[in-house]
Amino acid sequence: MKVVKFGGSSLSCSEQVEKVFNIVVSDPERKVVVVSAPGKRFAEDTKVTDLLIECAAAYLQGREDHHAFQAIIDRYESIAEGLKLPGGTVVEIKSNLLELLNGDRSDPQKYMDAVKATGEDSHARLIAAYFQHKGVEAHYVNPKEAGLLVTDEPGNAQPLPETYESLYRLREREGIVIFPGFFGFNREGEIVTFSRSGSDITGSILASGIKAAVYENFTDVDAVYSVNPSIINRPKEITEITYREMRELSYAGFSVFHDEALMPAFKAGIPVNVKNTNQPGKPGTMIVKERELANGPVIGIASDEGFSSIYVSKYLLNREIGFGRKLLSILEDFHLSFEHMPSGIDDISIILRQEPLNQTVEEQVVQRIKEELQADDVKVERNLALIMMVGEGMRESVGTAARASTALARAGVNIEMINQGSSEVSMMFGVRVSDERKAVQALYEEFFAGVAI
Amino acid sequence: MKVVKFGGSSLSCSEQVEKVFNIVVSDPERKVVVVSAPGKRFAEDTKVTDLLIECAAAYLQGREDHHAFQAIIDRYESIAEGLKLPGGTVVEIKSNLLELLNGDRSDPQKYMDAVKATGEDSHARLIAAYFQHKGVEAHYVNPKEAGLLVTDEPGNAQPLPETYESLYRLREREGIVIFPGFFGFNREGEIVTFSRSGSDITGSILASGIKAAVYENFTDVDAVYSVNPSIINRPKEITEITYREMRELSYAGFSVFHDEALMPAFKAGIPVNVKNTNQPGKPGTMIVKERELANGPVIGIASDEGFSSIYVSKYLLNREIGFGRKLLSILEDFHLSFEHMPSGIDDISIILRQEPLNQTVEEQVVQRIKEELQADDVKVERNLALIMMVGEGMRESVGTAARASTALARAGVNIEMINQGSSEVSMMFGVRVSDERKAVQALYEEFFAGVAI
Repeated sequence: MKVVKFGGSSLSCSEQVEKVFNIVVSDPERKVVVVSAPGKRFAEDTKVTDLLIECAAAYLQGREDHHAFQAIIDRYESIAEGLKLPGGTVVEIKSNLLELLNGDRSDPQKYMDAVKATGEDSHARLIAAYFQHKGVEAHYVNPKEAGLLVTDEPGNAQPLPETYESLYRLREREGIVIFPGFFGFNREGEIVTFSRSGSDITGSILASGIKAAVYENFTDVDAVYSVNPSIINRPKEITEITYREMRELSYAGFSVFHDEALMPAFKAGIPVNVKNTNQPGKPGTMIVKERELANGPVIGIASDEGFSSIYVSKYLLNREIGFGRKLLSILEDFHLSFEHMPSGIDDISIILRQEPLNQTVEEQVVQRIKEELQADDVKVERNLALIMMVGEGMRESVGTAARASTALARAGVNIEMINQGSSEVSMMFGVRVSDERKAVQALYEEFFAGVAI
Repeated sequence: MKVVKFGGSSLSCSEQVEKVFNIVVSDPERKVVVVSAPGKRFAEDTKVTDLLIECAAAYLQGREDHHAFQAIIDRYESIAEGLKLPGGTVVEIKSNLLELLNGDRSDPQKYMDAVKATGEDSHARLIAAYFQHKGVEAHYVNPKEAGLLVTDEPGNAQPLPETYESLYRLREREGIVIFPGFFGFNREGEIVTFSRSGSDITGSILASGIKAAVYENFTDVDAVYSVNPSIINRPKEITEITYREMRELSYAGFSVFHDEALMPAFKAGIPVNVKNTNQPGKPGTMIVKERELANGPVIGIASDEGFSSIYVSKYLLNREIGFGRKLLSILEDFHLSFEHMPSGIDDISIILRQEPLNQTVEEQVVQRIKEELQADDVKVERNLALIMMVGEGMRESVGTAARASTALARAGVNIEMINQGSSEVSMMFGVRVSDERKAVQALYEEFFAGVAI
């Protein structure tokens, strides 16, 4: 039994929905289909979810946004027409949305969540209708009815433990289950949405709930790439990758998945197959618990910019018990979390995300470190990039650090920081943002050129 | 004007004292001579300071140690005889020591400090007598009289600020000043000793006090070596090294100096010249504020064993503000200071000295981390060695990390940790203790073979 999830671009127009239909019916194991709201059809297009947000925001300010409202209805209508569905489907979508928009606005956050969720919900109803229209037994299932209970955190809902047991019963439903992604219900029966990549989360929870053999995640890329395709042209595709490798890669800007989205599936040990709706015959990438190591120690290289370092030096610092703890306490007072903390004999550097460290915060942090810790010197350096090399094979391979740093040296990249020591399956380099592309290219060349995948 | 300090082995017998005399009088700039207690004459010999400790310990237990007492007096007598000094010198040393041993024992720590200090004090008196006997104007100067005031921390005295001004007046003394190393006086006029390498500290304080042009530190090696001679046979000698490089090297087991000993001289910007009493014509090693960079990026390689790592993993750890701080707080409760703290996405490792982390402490620390931080996994790994590569030239050299890690890989050394990022003049590798020698040899081969110093 499989759970199959389709992203917004895979469901953006009638042609795409037809592809989805064909994919689903081509494999009788595809039991549960999780759908997103209609996404972009072309680069400048607007996602239905964004139109819904616009619309709800207007209503919250006491005015109607006819333009956005009509654009939403037009999207569903054009899909329904393309699929040659009878007119009734979109009429119901329209009246439901209107009723909701004019409904209770006393809690703006709850209101916004409920309106946003109709993007997925309406599309699931429409797609279920299409499957039926094509003579396939399929039913729209509402998350409330299915028992998808979540915590009451709008935009960041977490599944409640009893959810999984309830969802297991979906196995017994007749026909194909068409399930809207992105949201669940709190104990009060109100809609609460997940975070970014919400439909991925729904699919992941359902896969865990029904104990699926595989969770197929259809999107618009053939596979997970070994490196960002905007840095390396046509990089190697990853055929098999472990959960842990995927998670380490996600950390540093690997954008295929929001790294928490797949956790429910990972925890249940269910393999995730990333596939392309437009190339369903291709094998895609399998994300698994364990894999055979082949093709060298490194499976992927990710990079992310926007880091700063705070360098603190003080004579005899390394004899001062509590220095590191006090330093971190100061950061904590400003709600700053640190990424890395390399230390020398008389100095510590803190690597952290640059964004929350604005000019005002920076000045206060520097002042407090100087005063409270009596530091001799405090310096902030901005515009660092972190490059993460990931691979379970690194665990058993002597010389990966050597190959990597040699490649970086050859490319003339100055390494500002090396972090190796905690995770055995990754190695991190800090470089200047201006060296980021060059660094990734050099590492890719070293570890992937000549490797057949 | 120079301050010249001689270590215990440079003053262990009459032949050595004669060498010292010749060294001092050969340069009229050598104004202040700091002397240690007589050290070992041969490998199995006992230092006078150790005999004094034995003696004082016996008296504190209410018995006399005639054997140790006689051994002490014999040492001074044999030196005095060899130098053909009149008999009176040692008679005074003997009666002073006896009086002290039979004196006030109400504060055992103070008593021990006072007895220990006579090793240097008596030798300074004897050596001053020898200089005079040879017709050179020289005077023993007592630290109390000179104003060497220190904090009241037995075995860890720190100079008080006003000390330096008092010592400056030594410049005006007639002739050569013979000054006992290792101790000063607290404000109550009681003897308090410095920590390990106490005579180095005295010399360093005097050099700062009299604003010496150079602080010459005579010992029994020709120079500071680029690497431990017990690992590399006849390693390159360092001709010039900066304070900072010296300090970073001292951190990881570089045994020429206790790293704090030279700080007073460093802070006053006074160059320190490490020379060999037995080869005074050799230039030795100059420790300076700044140096010309030559001969490659690395000036020295040090290593030290006896480290452990505590690996802590927890899912979503890197989102948890305060995790690192709480972890360090737990260590602090056990008075454990950390050396390094490499971190990954879901894990942090703490590298710390193994010695205070005994089995009981380890179990408690692990349990508290598991319970209070709800860590998924906590693992302790023992027997790590840290290898420190130091050089100001690394600041400007791309590829040092590459050369180092390639050399280690070639030698089959698995790198457990790399720490680069805080100090710009050092790079640290963590390896298994069993790989330590091999690792140091490989790095030496890479950075020093073929470099002419």
